[in-house]
Amino acid sequence: MSQEYAVIGKSVPRNDGWDKVTGKAKYTGDLKFPNLLVGKILTSPHAHARILSIDTSEAEKLPGVKAVITHEDVPSVKYGISPARWDENIFCIDKVRFVGDKVAAVAAVDEETVYKALKLIKVEYEVLPAVFDPFEAMREDAPLVQEEYPRNINTEIHQNFGDVDKAFAEAYYVRTDRFKGQRTYQSPIEPHSAISHWDRDKLTIYSSTQSPHYFQYYIAREFGLPMGSVRVLKTHIGGGFGGKLEPTGLEFAGAALSKLTGRPVRMFYDRHDMFAHNRGRHAQFMELKTGVDKDGKILAVHANFVMDGGAYTSLGVASAYYAGALLTIPYEFDNYKFDMFRVNTNLPACGAQRGHGHPQPRFAFESHLDNIAQELGIDPVEIRLRNARKSQTTTLNEFKVETCALTEALEKARDLSNWREKKGKLTSGRGIGIGVGSFVSGAGYPIYRTDLPQASAVIKVNEDGSEVTLYSGSVDIGQGSDTVLCQMAAEAMGYLYEKIRIVSADTELAPHDFGAYASRQTLMSGAAVKQAGEEVKAQLLEISAPGMGVTAEELDCREGIIFVKANPEISRTFGEVAREFFVKKGPLVGRGVYHVPKLGGKFKGAAVGTSPAYSFAAQIAEVNIDEETGEVKIEEVWDVHDCGKVINPALLHAQVHGAFYMGMGESVWEQVLFDDKGRIINANLAEYRLPTALDMPRFHSDLVDTIDPNGPWGVKEVGEGATTPVMGCISNAITDAIGVRINSLPLSYEKVWRAIQERKKNKSGE
Amino acid sequence: MSQEYAVIGKSVPRNDGWDKVTGKAKYTGDLKFPNLLVGKILTSPHAHARILSIDTSEAEKLPGVKAVITHEDVPSVKYGISPARWDENIFCIDKVRFVGDKVAAVAAVDEETVYKALKLIKVEYEVLPAVFDPFEAMREDAPLVQEEYPRNINTEIHQNFGDVDKAFAEAYYVRTDRFKGQRTYQSPIEPHSAISHWDRDKLTIYSSTQSPHYFQYYIAREFGLPMGSVRVLKTHIGGGFGGKLEPTGLEFAGAALSKLTGRPVRMFYDRHDMFAHNRGRHAQFMELKTGVDKDGKILAVHANFVMDGGAYTSLGVASAYYAGALLTIPYEFDNYKFDMFRVNTNLPACGAQRGHGHPQPRFAFESHLDNIAQELGIDPVEIRLRNARKSQTTTLNEFKVETCALTEALEKARDLSNWREKKGKLTSGRGIGIGVGSFVSGAGYPIYRTDLPQASAVIKVNEDGSEVTLYSGSVDIGQGSDTVLCQMAAEAMGYLYEKIRIVSADTELAPHDFGAYASRQTLMSGAAVKQAGEEVKAQLLEISAPGMGVTAEELDCREGIIFVKANPEISRTFGEVAREFFVKKGPLVGRGVYHVPKLGGKFKGAAVGTSPAYSFAAQIAEVNIDEETGEVKIEEVWDVHDCGKVINPALLHAQVHGAFYMGMGESVWEQVLFDDKGRIINANLAEYRLPTALDMPRFHSDLVDTIDPNGPWGVKEVGEGATTPVMGCISNAITDAIGVRINSLPLSYEKVWRAIQERKKNKSGE
Repeated sequence: MSQEYAVIGKSVPRNDGWDKVTGKAKYTGDLKFPNLLVGKILTSPHAHARILSIDTSEAEKLPGVKAVITHEDVPSVKYGISPARWDENIFCIDKVRFVGDKVAAVAAVDEETVYKALKLIKVEYEVLPAVFDPFEAMREDAPLVQEEYPRNINTEIHQNFGDVDKAFAEAYYVRTDRFKGQRTYQSPIEPHSAISHWDRDKLTIYSSTQSPHYFQYYIAREFGLPMGSVRVLKTHIGGGFGGKLEPTGLEFAGAALSKLTGRPVRMFYDRHDMFAHNRGRHAQFMELKTGVDKDGKILAVHANFVMDGGAYTSLGVASAYYAGALLTIPYEFDNYKFDMFRVNTNLPACGAQRGHGHPQPRFAFESHLDNIAQELGIDPVEIRLRNARKSQTTTLNEFKVETCALTEALEKARDLSNWREKKGKLTSGRGIGIGVGSFVSGAGYPIYRTDLPQASAVIKVNEDGSEVTLYSGSVDIGQGSDTVLCQMAAEAMGYLYEKIRIVSADTELAPHDFGAYASRQTLMSGAAVKQAGEEVKAQLLEISAPGMGVTAEELDCREGIIFVKANPEISRTFGEVAREFFVKKGPLVGRGVYHVPKLGGKFKGAAVGTSPAYSFAAQIAEVNIDEETGEVKIEEVWDVHDCGKVINPALLHAQVHGAFYMGMGESVWEQVLFDDKGRIINANLAEYRLPTALDMPRFHSDLVDTIDPNGPWGVKEVGEGATTPVMGCISNAITDAIGVRINSLPLSYEKVWRAIQERKKNKSGE
Repeated sequence: MSQEYAVIGKSVPRNDGWDKVTGKAKYTGDLKFPNLLVGKILTSPHAHARILSIDTSEAEKLPGVKAVITHEDVPSVKYGISPARWDENIFCIDKVRFVGDKVAAVAAVDEETVYKALKLIKVEYEVLPAVFDPFEAMREDAPLVQEEYPRNINTEIHQNFGDVDKAFAEAYYVRTDRFKGQRTYQSPIEPHSAISHWDRDKLTIYSSTQSPHYFQYYIAREFGLPMGSVRVLKTHIGGGFGGKLEPTGLEFAGAALSKLTGRPVRMFYDRHDMFAHNRGRHAQFMELKTGVDKDGKILAVHANFVMDGGAYTSLGVASAYYAGALLTIPYEFDNYKFDMFRVNTNLPACGAQRGHGHPQPRFAFESHLDNIAQELGIDPVEIRLRNARKSQTTTLNEFKVETCALTEALEKARDLSNWREKKGKLTSGRGIGIGVGSFVSGAGYPIYRTDLPQASAVIKVNEDGSEVTLYSGSVDIGQGSDTVLCQMAAEAMGYLYEKIRIVSADTELAPHDFGAYASRQTLMSGAAVKQAGEEVKAQLLEISAPGMGVTAEELDCREGIIFVKANPEISRTFGEVAREFFVKKGPLVGRGVYHVPKLGGKFKGAAVGTSPAYSFAAQIAEVNIDEETGEVKIEEVWDVHDCGKVINPALLHAQVHGAFYMGMGESVWEQVLFDDKGRIINANLAEYRLPTALDMPRFHSDLVDTIDPNGPWGVKEVGEGATTPVMGCISNAITDAIGVRINSLPLSYEKVWRAIQERKKNKSGE
């Protein structure tokens, strides 16, 4: 490999690392501007209430207050990020729908004044009955959260592939299990922040965003501006995980406040606000029915799901589709039925969180599959191997899978973990257990509702080749995409990583790209960067060929040396030829664009497209349970990934570690909790129990090689998918350890303790 | 005209105007960075002295001091901006050469500490004999300022075209006059400032520079870095006028201090420092001998000049060549001899100031020509008309002049000013007078010592055409080039000015351009921008042609509408087609580059190349002299310019006003004065007598049309040249008013009063 490529495949240092570790990196909230005002949104104290009146007069009189705005001062165009489900207003007009809903906003000279002013705004509410449970919300007599969705059903999906009933009838064994996933929160280290400056005809927004180009579109649309009148950019981001993908009230209210005051306005959510506004993971209620033959081969699956969507749509339509659509990929079967209701409740809206709608269904299915394996007496790894997807197959719902090394991943994880020596041979059933899970994740799901390319890139080489600037609309949210894309640019051009500077995540300087979500950038942005780099290289080879007595086809460029392939002694430097190009032809520029190829067949369900490539992995975890207290200790984990060509191994393994860490938290500790008025009771990082570094197990991140023809150099994805198998894998390990299945997340110490007590009671009762 | 072009030729508002008038515009000294240190240079108190020792130990001990550096801590590579005359070091090594020469530098936490620390540096000097007069400096026994230049002759030029002696012998009248021009200072409103940050392998310098790409080259060379490791950029500049063209000690010392401390360092010159370091106009000693026939037609000229260069070369080689080379252009003649000695003295170095070396020789020649006219009884306008250059001629020193409307300009100025009614018919000789001057200025003098293009540009259109980003290495130093280049981009693309954003003067983001000097940008940077814009337009026409049922050649685009030329009803919008392009082909990018065409013939004298185009003008001034006090009041001025196609009339006339204002100050009030130790005695804006707005005359800036084939859309120059005729024009008006010629600048009240006294004494003695 190291012979094949000069730059990719190496753990070069990340290009933002120095600034981050020395504290030089500026995040949005760190930025200073002259005359900067501070803004804050007044939110609803009620889960459901009619707004009778808003009196801002006292707040306006407070010295230092520069503007107080309500729905009357802003456009009333509804917005949202799910197509055709635009259901949010900058400020609530008729009623509030959850505790935290946006009612008004203040801009003032400092934070103290802002908070004082918020208290002076008088809002008269008529409190309405609220609904917090999706099943109750679907009752005919339930209060309606959004009037346009009868029975509060925001999204309803019914898909049917093959003949599920026939397959069940023919199955050797049919099993039904019910599982529950909890509402969680992304917990980025940096809370949301946006600085908006509406300066005459140009609105500039610095935002902690995962997608400046999305924000640009939605903000321009809201305020009736041409796209080019809105510039959205970010500096550094302290984590996104899906929660920073859609524009928040901060950008809309900030823009309106800045327009009114003529001054830049910094808006922010504090940690408490973040729990209500970060659009975390949906709680899902998942019934799975699966029929298998006597060898454990899956014949049919029926997934019957309900999601608690909270008060608004957010990205929930996509979450709802992902929940069911991706269940068909890791294991091959032909008959599938998927029913989903995403239901509005008077709770904060849920949206995208690492893995989107899929990790909880994965938890459910991996648990369910282990139950089936146990019933049939088949080893859990073995039942997965028997069903594992193969390369160059198409799923029943017509997703084309070019490469899949799940079999190899399962075998490698099994061997690395000594699974055969351990499964059922530890103190299984009495405290120590081992479990397995598999997963799939797509490398980006194309936006099909637009004909715009998914990504584009421009590369400019300076006049002597001593510097290369890569302009990419992609977004480094901490995952290292700026580094990876610079490596890809260098490889494609045949130049050195150290020479590449990147200008990313700026709608004015960089060309269009949909941004950082759904693990899309390495493949999609990378494909555009590769094309731009290759265009640069082609121009250099073209101009140097005559002087070197060969054709351009006979030349190559690598690590800054242009050479005759048949006789590498004949060479010129990249810089020398770049200079010649500049002198003879002007600026050396390469352009790249990525459209998703037409993959798979027709697709049922508009929101989720097929991905160009799918990553797979097997994960095995060993846990140690304190039978006295229920304390769960995750001792050691083996993750074997099939993620295509690896551009930067250090960053890849960092992603796997981080994704596991996140999944581990959701497996055992994390849950957003509400009181009976719909108020979050643990909206802080003391009571919302994130794991710490000390909770990390001994962790082995390993790989199986695949080179996917649909990704540049064969890349697939890594950032998001590795969260997906964790809950199922840990669930199976705990089940192995304590001998009892817990069907609802999180697998908290209390639930584990209660399960052990139940087991002991049952055992003693036998 | 307004029909011919949609965007150029209109006084669109300048794109930096709002920020400047509201105080939002940030200049280098306004920028804030975390951990910013303040740095200052310790300068020499002696005009000429050997450095025996430097003791920095006490300064280093002062709390708050972060670094103290001398020549021992920095590279000893000599630098300079004139080719092959590199004679400066970051800090003096062996000796100091003028009061203000650079000896050491300090970086500390604040200004107070910096100034304290400077006083604690102990430098032991052996004072050497100094020389302040260029004629004395050329004596064999004079102390040598720079050892490598015998008799202190830094630059020596002897050119001889035609047969001067023969022409003099055959002339009807031969006259010799001697003139003197004084040392002046550019007086930009913003003093020099530079913030350097050497952050690991990247040195970033924010500087008040007229040419980031020049700075980048010289700084990279000094520190042995690849160009791409140095990023130079500017925000806004408060005037340059030539004084901000070459890198100063601030950039070099700042870079070294930042490297040592690891922190950004802000260096600055205060107003006093500026007088010593801003590289103002050379004092010139000018002997002119001219032979004419009896009609006043010039037959031969001998220019014999000496320049006081100060201690270093700076841009003086070019100044020396310009002084003589441009004398041959406005008036046609065939025989010419030019002798020049640029001499080093122990005074601050002189360099480029608006008009470079040419305004003083122009003063001399215009005065000299009036003397001849008077002797022959020819009207001053008439003698100029008889000699005025015509279009499509070549000067004796082989400068090719494509367009020249000097004749029309003279006639128009004559008519507008009612010259015929006024010349000799005011109280001429008793207080009120009128004078005329002409000038030429090139639209940029190409850098011939490089094969690099003179300018380049890149244009990027966003995905729906709602925004266009123009990347240009050009530099807006207040003249409005960012505005003019955006107009040109819009015109070339067929789009709207309001849609164009510019990223200029940044070596990382923008492609190479030599920057703002020698009035080069409208023509040279503009040509690159035009080409880039046309490349964008061509791509749009190409892609829209098939759908519109025509060929690309049958289409045009104007103000955002692509239409069939023969049937403009058939049209599509720019944005719609831009989007189609992006969807089908990716980022829409245009590239432009400008190489100077091969113009004129062979050139004698390496430093000054031929310009692609020359602007001309006639200027007439009416003055009113208080015969009691000598006070000069410039009452009214008519300037008629032949400057090619005008892109932005408001900015053009602003340039003419500003250039006249500057020339007026140098004509009457401004002079840098020294004591007998070589110390400037009026290095402040109270005693260095700049005119104010109240001193401005009624000013008429008018035009004669030319369209030069060598400039984009026919542009030539304006910014610099209009300073050139002022001194001669005012000199001639004063002479008309008081009846006596004053041969040395400035034409101060005292000199005028003494001349009047002399005249009265002579008259009474007759």
